[in-house]
This record gives sequence, C-alpha cells and structure tokens, in this order.
Amino acid sequence: MCPKYESAAELLGKKWTGLIIRVLLGGPKRFKEIKEQIPDMSDKMLTDRMKELEAIHIVKRTVYPEMPVRIEYELTDRGHDLEPVILSIQDWGEKWM
Amino acid sequence: MCPKYESAAELLGKKWTGLIIRVLLGGPKRFKEIKEQIPDMSDKMLTDRMKELEAIHIVKRTVYPEMPVRIEYELTDRGHDLEPVILSIQDWGEKWM
Repeated sequence: MCPKYESAAELLGKKWTGLIIRVLLGGPKRFKEIKEQIPDMSDKMLTDRMKELEAIHIVKRTVYPEMPVRIEYELTDRGHDLEPVILSIQDWGEKWM
Repeated sequence: MCPKYESAAELLGKKWTGLIIRVLLGGPKRFKEIKEQIPDMSDKMLTDRMKELEAIHIVKRTVYPEMPVRIEYELTDRGHDLEPVILSIQDWGEKWM
C-alpha cells in the first residue's frame, strides 16, 4: 500500500485539486469555464494546478488551432478513474467534518 | 464540497495516516502492535499521528488500569467510515501510480 497510496492521497489533498478534478468530471472545459466554477481560486493557482495535473497525466491539454486559439482541458482515463475516490472523500467529509 | 472535502483529503494525504488507519481497521491495537506493522515509521511520528487522529476523533485511546497499564487504540465510527475512502485511494494508486 505505502508509497502508491501516499502519492495518490497527497495529490488529492492539495488545495483546489479535488475541486478542479470534480469540475472536469463534467467534461472538457476551457480555463475560463473552470475559473467560473471555482471563483475563489486565483488564475495563478489554477495555472499551477493544471500544470501539475498535466505533468502527472491526470489532465490533458488540447490546443485547437482556431482563430482565436481555443485551449481545452479534459481528464485522461487516469483522471476519470478518480471519480469514486473523490466522491468517497466528499461523502465522508460531508458526514463527519 | 470545498472546505469539507479539503479538510478530509488533507488529513488522508498526511504521511503514514492512511497506513495507520488501515492497520486499525483490523481492530484495536496497542502502540507496539501498530509499530510492528509499520516498521519504517519512527516512534515519535506514530505518537504525533495518534495524537492528531485522537484530536479529530478518528482514533479513540483507552487506558486499561491493569498492571502494567494497557493502552489500546481503536477507530471511532468516524474512523471506521474511512474504510471505503482508503480502499478507493489505494485501488486508484495501485492501478495508476
């Protein structure tokens, strides 16, 4: 259990990460659309978190060469698989915190 | 979701916490018995974590007035309810990390 559990749990415990993943469980989103759903988070924070999530292949960033350029963020399979984890943490938090 | 999710996820992301809870899902244990199952963790770390978990009512500490005194740690209901959370994090970690 040890190192894998802890890497995963540490990731999910970072501020905003759970919420960002939750927003993206609703489908691909642009930066602005994510921000709209998490208004208290700064642009810099969202940028940082998205880079982290991209680096560990939980989020995929796609650039559509339109005019103006459109950039969308979506969960990878690995990211989608976090749904039961996030829901179980949320259930527990709502019941007990 | 926000603050409750994050408090819960932050708790579970602390080093050793998931593992300690997992050991205690097996039933009440003495300090030594927990240590035996997590040999890489220092005594001080286990002491600190147990105090934290006691403070937030996830672990209950019972002193049995025997000779010598016996002290046991067990999960509260709130702690037991973490089982599906820990299992889901572990499943995800094993599949994807």
